[in-house]
Amino acid sequence: MHYSSSAVERAVMELSKLPGVGRKSAQRMVFYLLKQSPQAVNDLSTSLSDLVQKVKFCSICNNIAEEETCEICRSEKRDRSIICVVEEANDIWAFERTGDYRGLYHVLGGVLSPLDGIGPDDLHVKELLQRLDDSVHEVIVATNPSTEGEATALYLAKLIKPLAIKLTRIARGIPVGADLEHADEMTLSRALEGRAEI
Amino acid sequence: MHYSSSAVERAVMELSKLPGVGRKSAQRMVFYLLKQSPQAVNDLSTSLSDLVQKVKFCSICNNIAEEETCEICRSEKRDRSIICVVEEANDIWAFERTGDYRGLYHVLGGVLSPLDGIGPDDLHVKELLQRLDDSVHEVIVATNPSTEGEATALYLAKLIKPLAIKLTRIARGIPVGADLEHADEMTLSRALEGRAEI
Repeated sequence: MHYSSSAVERAVMELSKLPGVGRKSAQRMVFYLLKQSPQAVNDLSTSLSDLVQKVKFCSICNNIAEEETCEICRSEKRDRSIICVVEEANDIWAFERTGDYRGLYHVLGGVLSPLDGIGPDDLHVKELLQRLDDSVHEVIVATNPSTEGEATALYLAKLIKPLAIKLTRIARGIPVGADLEHADEMTLSRALEGRAEI
Repeated sequence: MHYSSSAVERAVMELSKLPGVGRKSAQRMVFYLLKQSPQAVNDLSTSLSDLVQKVKFCSICNNIAEEETCEICRSEKRDRSIICVVEEANDIWAFERTGDYRGLYHVLGGVLSPLDGIGPDDLHVKELLQRLDDSVHEVIVATNPSTEGEATALYLAKLIKPLAIKLTRIARGIPVGADLEHADEMTLSRALEGRAEI
């Protein structure tokens, strides 16, 4: 299928590279944009090119930032004795939304995945170890409960345990609001394992 | 939730305006883009701003075009005696994909929808009537089989029937590959109504 306009074709192609966007959704987006004001489309376009120009990564925790360090690492309100290790910067925002965590973070930038050729050197592991001085009392490993996430947690445990720093892993169990009946066996086993007194 | 970066926040906000994109999908897109090369992100950004600068609408049929008229209206291979009336420019591409239609098109730019305040003057109805000279032998009304689409088809019929031009409506029936069992009553009635000899 060829569009009468190569500009349309190119926009469809570029948009369909985004995660979760197929060719049909990209077409819908382009036809939607064609009905908007030029200003609205330019706002979108500029916001994307600004991502490249303005967004940096925090030199301490690798979170997204607009300065040398991120807001969280700069904040004096955060508890500097706890570091929560996450896979990606967006995981930080999942924790921040809870409002329950006041420590710092460290973004690994992925998980160990030998099949994809991702080893420890491709992650920000060295930078994490450099942060673990006497002021740090606890490291929370909050990688995803996937095979790779668990393997990465185990790998970090091996490196950090000898440093005599408290090392914890976020609980795996039944999600709040979910139905026991529909939980898979692994999740149920973990929920039993992690049971706590009431 | 605040991002450390207002550039990220703005990109999330702009992307979530797109159809089918919620805040969470927009976040995923932005974090995906932050992992891409600056060139890749700029390509996307440029392709969107090009939409505004390069895409025009055909002065004959209102299809998207990069010149005064669209490729289809300019083509000498098309049958100029048939005009297929569609709601939006993307409907044209649905027909073009079939490869079965060789006539011209006319984009209404929407459907009659009194509730949304869209009347005949908001659609390209006048332009359609102006195209209906002696060379046009058939007008196919291919608005969607929705309430508004049917109402628009009836409205066009009232205007075009007196001109003694053959006026047809695309068939409504069971989609190819679908299951009779799951078809709704309206579709089944239409399928019966439109039955043809084998």
